[in-house]
Amino acid sequence: MTTQAFFPKVQSPIRFEGPKSKNPLAFKYYDARKKVRGKTMAEHFRFACAFWHTMKGNGADMFGPGAWTREWAAGASPMEIAEKTLRANFEFCVKMGIPFYCFHDRDIAPEGATFAESCKNLDAIVKLAKKLQKETGIKLLWGTANLFSNPRYTHGAGTNPDAHVFAYAVAQVKHAMDATKTLGGENYVFWGGREGYETLLNTNYSREQETFARFLQTAVDYKKKIGFKGQFLIEPKPKEPSKHQYDFDSATVLGFLRAHGLYEHFKINVEANHATLAGHTFEHELTVAAAEGKLGSIDANTGDLMLGWDTDQFPTNLYSAASAMMVVLESGGLGTGGFNFDSKCRRGSMDSLDLFYAHIGGMDTFARGLLVADRMLSNKAYDKFVTNRYASWTNGVGSAILKGKMDAVALEKWVLKNGEPKLTSGRQEMLEILFNDSL
Amino acid sequence: MTTQAFFPKVQSPIRFEGPKSKNPLAFKYYDARKKVRGKTMAEHFRFACAFWHTMKGNGADMFGPGAWTREWAAGASPMEIAEKTLRANFEFCVKMGIPFYCFHDRDIAPEGATFAESCKNLDAIVKLAKKLQKETGIKLLWGTANLFSNPRYTHGAGTNPDAHVFAYAVAQVKHAMDATKTLGGENYVFWGGREGYETLLNTNYSREQETFARFLQTAVDYKKKIGFKGQFLIEPKPKEPSKHQYDFDSATVLGFLRAHGLYEHFKINVEANHATLAGHTFEHELTVAAAEGKLGSIDANTGDLMLGWDTDQFPTNLYSAASAMMVVLESGGLGTGGFNFDSKCRRGSMDSLDLFYAHIGGMDTFARGLLVADRMLSNKAYDKFVTNRYASWTNGVGSAILKGKMDAVALEKWVLKNGEPKLTSGRQEMLEILFNDSL
Amino acid sequence: MTTQAFFPKVQSPIRFEGPKSKNPLAFKYYDARKKVRGKTMAEHFRFACAFWHTMKGNGADMFGPGAWTREWAAGASPMEIAEKTLRANFEFCVKMGIPFYCFHDRDIAPEGATFAESCKNLDAIVKLAKKLQKETGIKLLWGTANLFSNPRYTHGAGTNPDAHVFAYAVAQVKHAMDATKTLGGENYVFWGGREGYETLLNTNYSREQETFARFLQTAVDYKKKIGFKGQFLIEPKPKEPSKHQYDFDSATVLGFLRAHGLYEHFKINVEANHATLAGHTFEHELTVAAAEGKLGSIDANTGDLMLGWDTDQFPTNLYSAASAMMVVLESGGLGTGGFNFDSKCRRGSMDSLDLFYAHIGGMDTFARGLLVADRMLSNKAYDKFVTNRYASWTNGVGSAILKGKMDAVALEKWVLKNGEPKLTSGRQEMLEILFNDSL
Amino acid sequence: MTTQAFFPKVQSPIRFEGPKSKNPLAFKYYDARKKVRGKTMAEHFRFACAFWHTMKGNGADMFGPGAWTREWAAGASPMEIAEKTLRANFEFCVKMGIPFYCFHDRDIAPEGATFAESCKNLDAIVKLAKKLQKETGIKLLWGTANLFSNPRYTHGAGTNPDAHVFAYAVAQVKHAMDATKTLGGENYVFWGGREGYETLLNTNYSREQETFARFLQTAVDYKKKIGFKGQFLIEPKPKEPSKHQYDFDSATVLGFLRAHGLYEHFKINVEANHATLAGHTFEHELTVAAAEGKLGSIDANTGDLMLGWDTDQFPTNLYSAASAMMVVLESGGLGTGGFNFDSKCRRGSMDSLDLFYAHIGGMDTFARGLLVADRMLSNKAYDKFVTNRYASWTNGVGSAILKGKMDAVALEKWVLKNGEPKLTSGRQEMLEILFNDSL
Repeated sequence: MTTQAFFPKVQSPIRFEGPKSKNPLAFKYYDARKKVRGKTMAEHFRFACAFWHTMKGNGADMFGPGAWTREWAAGASPMEIAEKTLRANFEFCVKMGIPFYCFHDRDIAPEGATFAESCKNLDAIVKLAKKLQKETGIKLLWGTANLFSNPRYTHGAGTNPDAHVFAYAVAQVKHAMDATKTLGGENYVFWGGREGYETLLNTNYSREQETFARFLQTAVDYKKKIGFKGQFLIEPKPKEPSKHQYDFDSATVLGFLRAHGLYEHFKINVEANHATLAGHTFEHELTVAAAEGKLGSIDANTGDLMLGWDTDQFPTNLYSAASAMMVVLESGGLGTGGFNFDSKCRRGSMDSLDLFYAHIGGMDTFARGLLVADRMLSNKAYDKFVTNRYASWTNGVGSAILKGKMDAVALEKWVLKNGEPKLTSGRQEMLEILFNDSL
Repeated sequence: MTTQAFFPKVQSPIRFEGPKSKNPLAFKYYDARKKVRGKTMAEHFRFACAFWHTMKGNGADMFGPGAWTREWAAGASPMEIAEKTLRANFEFCVKMGIPFYCFHDRDIAPEGATFAESCKNLDAIVKLAKKLQKETGIKLLWGTANLFSNPRYTHGAGTNPDAHVFAYAVAQVKHAMDATKTLGGENYVFWGGREGYETLLNTNYSREQETFARFLQTAVDYKKKIGFKGQFLIEPKPKEPSKHQYDFDSATVLGFLRAHGLYEHFKINVEANHATLAGHTFEHELTVAAAEGKLGSIDANTGDLMLGWDTDQFPTNLYSAASAMMVVLESGGLGTGGFNFDSKCRRGSMDSLDLFYAHIGGMDTFARGLLVADRMLSNKAYDKFVTNRYASWTNGVGSAILKGKMDAVALEKWVLKNGEPKLTSGRQEMLEILFNDSL
Repeated sequence: MTTQAFFPKVQSPIRFEGPKSKNPLAFKYYDARKKVRGKTMAEHFRFACAFWHTMKGNGADMFGPGAWTREWAAGASPMEIAEKTLRANFEFCVKMGIPFYCFHDRDIAPEGATFAESCKNLDAIVKLAKKLQKETGIKLLWGTANLFSNPRYTHGAGTNPDAHVFAYAVAQVKHAMDATKTLGGENYVFWGGREGYETLLNTNYSREQETFARFLQTAVDYKKKIGFKGQFLIEPKPKEPSKHQYDFDSATVLGFLRAHGLYEHFKINVEANHATLAGHTFEHELTVAAAEGKLGSIDANTGDLMLGWDTDQFPTNLYSAASAMMVVLESGGLGTGGFNFDSKCRRGSMDSLDLFYAHIGGMDTFARGLLVADRMLSNKAYDKFVTNRYASWTNGVGSAILKGKMDAVALEKWVLKNGEPKLTSGRQEMLEILFNDSL
Repeated sequence: MTTQAFFPKVQSPIRFEGPKSKNPLAFKYYDARKKVRGKTMAEHFRFACAFWHTMKGNGADMFGPGAWTREWAAGASPMEIAEKTLRANFEFCVKMGIPFYCFHDRDIAPEGATFAESCKNLDAIVKLAKKLQKETGIKLLWGTANLFSNPRYTHGAGTNPDAHVFAYAVAQVKHAMDATKTLGGENYVFWGGREGYETLLNTNYSREQETFARFLQTAVDYKKKIGFKGQFLIEPKPKEPSKHQYDFDSATVLGFLRAHGLYEHFKINVEANHATLAGHTFEHELTVAAAEGKLGSIDANTGDLMLGWDTDQFPTNLYSAASAMMVVLESGGLGTGGFNFDSKCRRGSMDSLDLFYAHIGGMDTFARGLLVADRMLSNKAYDKFVTNRYASWTNGVGSAILKGKMDAVALEKWVLKNGEPKLTSGRQEMLEILFNDSL
């Protein structure tokens, strides 16, 4: 594979050793080949490494610059660093047993002095990535364009008040989509990092909604033109960096797509931490997307509910993972999507070994979550309770209502005849016990 | 008017006395006849008294029962109390100079032992209300059905797992809509107080979305059947009492309506406190609704951003009021809607005189907000700044983009030729000064 | 025991049946006699039933009145109902195997028309409680006075602007303390439900701080006078019902006690839901109190971190329970305190059977939490990591610093000689795996 | 003054032109010489420029690097840049008419390869600063040490698990205190940016509390040793960057100081945005500090209550400013403290002119706040209401209670004789109108 070993402390791929292992560099639950409901764990999850956090992350925050020293982050030129970082990425994925990776264009290749130079840089790196993909078998889950870091995007990309910036953003998306296609990317993601506003005082909301739709339509058209077969995904986030982001949550995005004739072209990439910043649970956002067949992929991480910003922590909570996996299992899986660890180690986890611990923890958490979800969904007492709860809709007046046969007048008559409904318990506390019993 | 004076401390209607008045029982800014942009303040606002808070409120909270003694709340029977309360409402509106009121069916008339008895009670009160409306000239802004207080609605009304409850809810809506029509109500409101879930563990989300749409469709059909001409309004709220409420915010509601073929039949009733509970500013929610021509009416109150529940305080913040009025003015006003004070005095404001202070404060706040908004929108420096900010969309490449004439390939070429966009300041701090200067 | 069976669906006390039991009316983890670290589970927890929620709760919320029908809540007079409710309490505790209960004076006995009558009512009920305690062996963990429900306390009790209310509150506390002493209560709790403010505009903060201290001092004096040996506890809460409550969190309370010479007389009663409303984790609040030897007792419940009010849900989260038990174990236990289920079923859990499910779930959760905490604290890899992390303080420069032997000048010299410290990982992600592995 | 003009668009100092001026580069309310309650506005406020935001800020956030180009930020070496930046600071202060500035050691001088080199850099810059102070008359409000940006402080400074880091932090504080003394700084600030924890799993809370106290004591000792007369200030913040910061809020800090014998040596530096992150209003935090005579200085900024991080926006809200000024006026002013604009322009405000707009807006906001506060406190109706509200404490039973003459037994007797207190309104809504009338 790669000639240089950036992770010498991990000599061989992480192995599954089962729950009794004391080896911190082993999986205790994630067994890639283990089958659950007819699919292997590898097939269920299609885990991906997030290039920006895992390879480019340095522990910086708003109160301090980078705190981590990475061997691959040093070099004579930006392109040399980019090449080393790319090699480190593949080494990491191979050693972790993670079959996919995801990137922004500007993560994998440095921005040049001009757009043309940026494109040239990207093309060179894509060439190397293609080679490394082939050598390692690691695949691209999705690509995307970074339309938020460069100062030109300060006031937005597809929603910028300046059409010049819009044009630039489309050009960048075009090139990033080309790169994604070249690398066989199975999806292409739109995260509108600065598509929103800081203050309504300087914002023409209607105009920005209009240009945003136009921006997405242009991407849809180009996708068709080049025959890119990957799934388009929109990733909602309610705020940060903008005060308000237009892709607030799944419901908002789906409504927007419907309003602008874009509905059929996109699915949702749900991120756990973005869900909670919007005041929703992770499983809520998954449920909203799945209910319309629009659950496309998952950014697997977690926030801290006591903190009001995107902490992007590695997922370790079994309740959240199991609740998520119940939705994923019931919706039939993610299709071309996967579980991308859009997660970063805490600033204090300075050692590159921490990257392994963190990913192992995340993968084991989801593997356990899958097993718990399977147990819950296989629990007949649980299934029976929920089915019975909605039984009134499958016949009698409920069925007639759903068929549109009972208007208000008919229903009033029915009520005058049938009187008060019976009060029944929703059994929340009992169901929470069932859930805990499955852990 | 009414024979009994429930508010003897206020002998005559509240008058406009201007900003220099020291009389706490006078308007200092709200002058019903004063014209702003061609309409009187009375026409701009169409203020309404919220029957439930102002007449039925008693200062109760989760940690203590009612703390206020109201003369109209005592009587030999529920119906006698209901009649006295109704009379008090009209006396209050007349003395306040508030031209409208709003009610839930169960506020104005007591629930009976059976649905039939409840209807009978309501009909009797509606008859009296019609008489009092005629006597006083006070009109009904909107009516609605209380589908959340009675235990039968614990698990929802239109989204109840039990079709029997659904039927009951429709019957109740039918009767409340009849009452609203009889009283010449100009709108009818749907607030889905328990249309949501407590836990996804016992919830069939897709089924509840389906029945919710069916519920609204049934109301739409009945409206047509009886020829009710009032505007249907949905009032979003993200949570409380439910953990999650389906009508989370304006964007969610508009998306839901679109998805279920209900879009043309409803507008939005935006409540300030509900907006902030959803993580939005009041003006954001107004902007979202107004951008689609769907801003129907306003529940004027405020929350406390430090507190996580619906405090329903009287609005006194000029920033919020002025920001709201900018949206209202720019969207051409509320049409058949109005400003309903869905606000309650604090538990410690035990005196019925506090009701007057509170409404005066609210009305003066919005009157000042209107004047500030008018000044801002008339400020040429402000207008010029925002117009210039978006000027690139009115010709050249911006115009071509909006007309769909620039695809990704063309835009890339354009960028290669035109290079980097210019960085320009959004001038947020300067605009905030302009706003302050208008106060 | 009691002659009437209010819980006929539960014929015999809930039993421990182990993790494999499918019986929802059995403990799967809570085994009262099982020893952990030398103490039985019964000794570790000293679980208590909260009279107000479990016996007096009716599912009411701000959007609907009581939704539950309880046989014991009906009767010919308030005192008859009080007696039935008390009997139901003891039946419930016996059937649950919960050895303690807690009450407010106004929960167990109705408020009368005068203070004298209220006292008479309380005395009568206390007499019956004493008899029932003796018959059943159920004991009183703590008593308290309800100083927040009656309208007289709207503006506070010990912090009321009116000295008359202060006097009333002291008189009520005196009588409640007498009752607690009579019943052998092991603690007495102060929760300042309305000791705070709604607006600083009408508040003399310094004066209220002064009267609050005087209020507590008066209670301390009376305790001494009557020779009551129970522990005094203050229960922090940051807000609700008041906008700001003076007993914001543990740190605030401890600071207040220190400032007013009351420190030695009080410990803290930590409530999980109050912790999270203050922006802290449950284990944080426990840690703050325990660090000063002030962890007195626990109100065991949980909030919903997506909701901004006191939901008082039954605790079911193993992470939270295990984290809490780590603090409790390390601090040597709660002494005369215990785990009081200040928790209520959701409004939709209408059946009295739900009370059993809920308490079983709560007790099993804490039992599992204890086992997890024991495993974590017994994990040598964990212990070694934390010990090593602070090893520098036990000798060399660290030890000298702690002994006060290194002033700033000496430390500067030391740094000039010793250079940069080594960067070491805090290993957060690895520790979170260890924690998950203990679940 | 300075030979180079970094702000050529502003040729002369900003002048007061009064409320009718349309000049955006003029004060409309801040008139340095205007007297309010016997003191000039300049004396009331003692405004300061925050070196880190105003001079070093570049618009960077977590989603993008610096977006602003500043002429002073370019140079051949770090020291040349530092000199230019310092000169720009003095030019800015002079042109703004801001009489003070504040700095962290690492803002004004670059960190060197060794501690010795860092000290040398600082000393050189301090020398220049002293000269520029003399030339311009601009003074140092406070200095402080940056103990959070360098990776060595990742796990804390005074609370670091490694005593080596503690030593380093003390050495740095010593040198920063020397610099502050040299420059005649009137205060010295401690903001514990990483004094807290990320996870309790790896934290010895008691040990960190102990070393934190030792850290502050060492500074107190050194202050005495060198005869530094400035006021020591602690600046509370609840979270960010740490998950939990030990100096959570004013009450926590004051309690900590009391517990560790440090109380007399420190006052509080209240920051508005930190207050709201802790769940408090700005005026609450000011009130808590002022009630103990511990209000030392103010970091004037504002957060966005919809956002969960420290946005450090320039203050423009008159309600907040007026509420704050009421506390400041009633507490007799800030003494050696002042109003430091710990505020930054939004990323989109790229122009250095925006720095002027922003500071003008902030100064005018506080000037108006002062005028409003003066009107409120001079309003006899307001004063009378609050005085009457607490009148019961000045004689009769209230006075006896405060003198400790009424024990619980005596109060019970008094209550039995005097019966129920009278219910009186707190008049919150009316007071809010009075407040609005003062705007």
